[in-house]
Amino acid sequence: MSAVRVACHQLAPVVGELAANRERALAAIDAAAAAGAQVVVLPELVSSGYVFEDAAEAHALAEPADGPTLTGWAARAATHDVLIAGGFPERGDDGRLYNSAALVDASGVRAVYRKAHLWDRESLFFTPGDEPPAVIDTAHGRIGLIVCYDLEFPEWTRAAALRGAELLCVPTNWPLLPRPPSERPMEVLRTMVTASTNRMAVAACDRCGAERGVEWVAGTAIAGPDGWLLAGPPERAEPQLLLADLDLADARDKALGPRNDALADRRPALYDAGPHT
Amino acid sequence: MSAVRVACHQLAPVVGELAANRERALAAIDAAAAAGAQVVVLPELVSSGYVFEDAAEAHALAEPADGPTLTGWAARAATHDVLIAGGFPERGDDGRLYNSAALVDASGVRAVYRKAHLWDRESLFFTPGDEPPAVIDTAHGRIGLIVCYDLEFPEWTRAAALRGAELLCVPTNWPLLPRPPSERPMEVLRTMVTASTNRMAVAACDRCGAERGVEWVAGTAIAGPDGWLLAGPPERAEPQLLLADLDLADARDKALGPRNDALADRRPALYDAGPHT
Repeated sequence: MSAVRVACHQLAPVVGELAANRERALAAIDAAAAAGAQVVVLPELVSSGYVFEDAAEAHALAEPADGPTLTGWAARAATHDVLIAGGFPERGDDGRLYNSAALVDASGVRAVYRKAHLWDRESLFFTPGDEPPAVIDTAHGRIGLIVCYDLEFPEWTRAAALRGAELLCVPTNWPLLPRPPSERPMEVLRTMVTASTNRMAVAACDRCGAERGVEWVAGTAIAGPDGWLLAGPPERAEPQLLLADLDLADARDKALGPRNDALADRRPALYDAGPHT
Repeated sequence: MSAVRVACHQLAPVVGELAANRERALAAIDAAAAAGAQVVVLPELVSSGYVFEDAAEAHALAEPADGPTLTGWAARAATHDVLIAGGFPERGDDGRLYNSAALVDASGVRAVYRKAHLWDRESLFFTPGDEPPAVIDTAHGRIGLIVCYDLEFPEWTRAAALRGAELLCVPTNWPLLPRPPSERPMEVLRTMVTASTNRMAVAACDRCGAERGVEWVAGTAIAGPDGWLLAGPPERAEPQLLLADLDLADARDKALGPRNDALADRRPALYDAGPHT
């Protein structure tokens, strides 16, 4: 079976409202499952919100991987037999905070990935992760996971593809930047090109809801392995459920016509040579 | 001085018509210079055309780097004090053919780059290059050069950026593939995202003119270091001159806000780790 229905549920967390944010995420999972989704992607830091005042606030909103946020997702994953990908601020055993995301299925927490490329003030609160993109086999496909700014590093998305990710989940909080009128957000173009370049589906789930003066792209988008959009971006910066039906067999086939292959055509001996790479 | 006017002249070479194709290219250089361009980008294999019947035809149309095509460009570069980037089939000293492109300025041929990633039937005629993207300092900026399918490998475009390319020239012959109605060609999106990801300008000069049944995207496009299009793609698949004014200082500044940098934020120790990269 390679057909899978993927949901991204754009949400508007409110910084500091842990209980309400968790409820919003659980309701989003329920809504996605009710719409037939087998994979549900939620935004980055969906339990806590994003715009922390200071490190003390970030610490107060963080929790370990066996804390209430992921425990709640695990219960819902079991109820609905869905795979959930979403972000939360992780307090590690080392006492440090990580901008993490998890893959959770009916059997529980399958992977916790710590964002390796930190954006702006995140470096005031979080320690960057040192592990590669999470890529795991699940009942719903071979699923990869990175977070937001990670997507801007093609080395990282390629690493996920080389590990066999058929669908790359990208919980995000994309701050809104100016762009030319009538242009799609660059983040959406990057989602499309990342998919096309690696012949893997990419599901980026963004947030909405201005937070302490920060506006968001609200650019949730699902691209198929050919790069074309199957869902999103939404017309309005509001919470909403986006769905796409994928055939992950398309993502396992890297052929580009009779003589080319998106991964096999790489020249790694050249990439690794010299002082610049 | 970091302001530069860049031209891409989309052209319709005819396979086998060496003399006429060379004339078309020289006329395009003249037109670009007359429009004030300091950098002129031409398509891939602009002297020969693309759709060779067989290896014998490819051999017959190939020439060394000191052959008439580049000699002609060097003369025009001197006349107009422009930098020319364009493609030709190179017969190497080793007797092999390469899908090459050259950077030619008023002082002569500055660099010959051999396409490292070959598309489809090219592998029947050409030997892939083993050298990194050309990147050279010129009177008109620090200019990089790759060819067509090379652009689909972010490792390669990143290598050009890490070598300091401020403007990446990409002579191309993009075969036309189906795409959803109202979507831009994926090749154009890739041009934009490559520029944005590396904070360097990218000028991709495509061809037009159906050749032995092959149609082309005719997707010539110039993106600034922020990724947004400054010129192209043309509305019609016809020969035409596209111009863009760039400030290459923007490409030297890799900052993304106060705490981020498109290149310095890379985590090369993580990319190099493990068996997958």
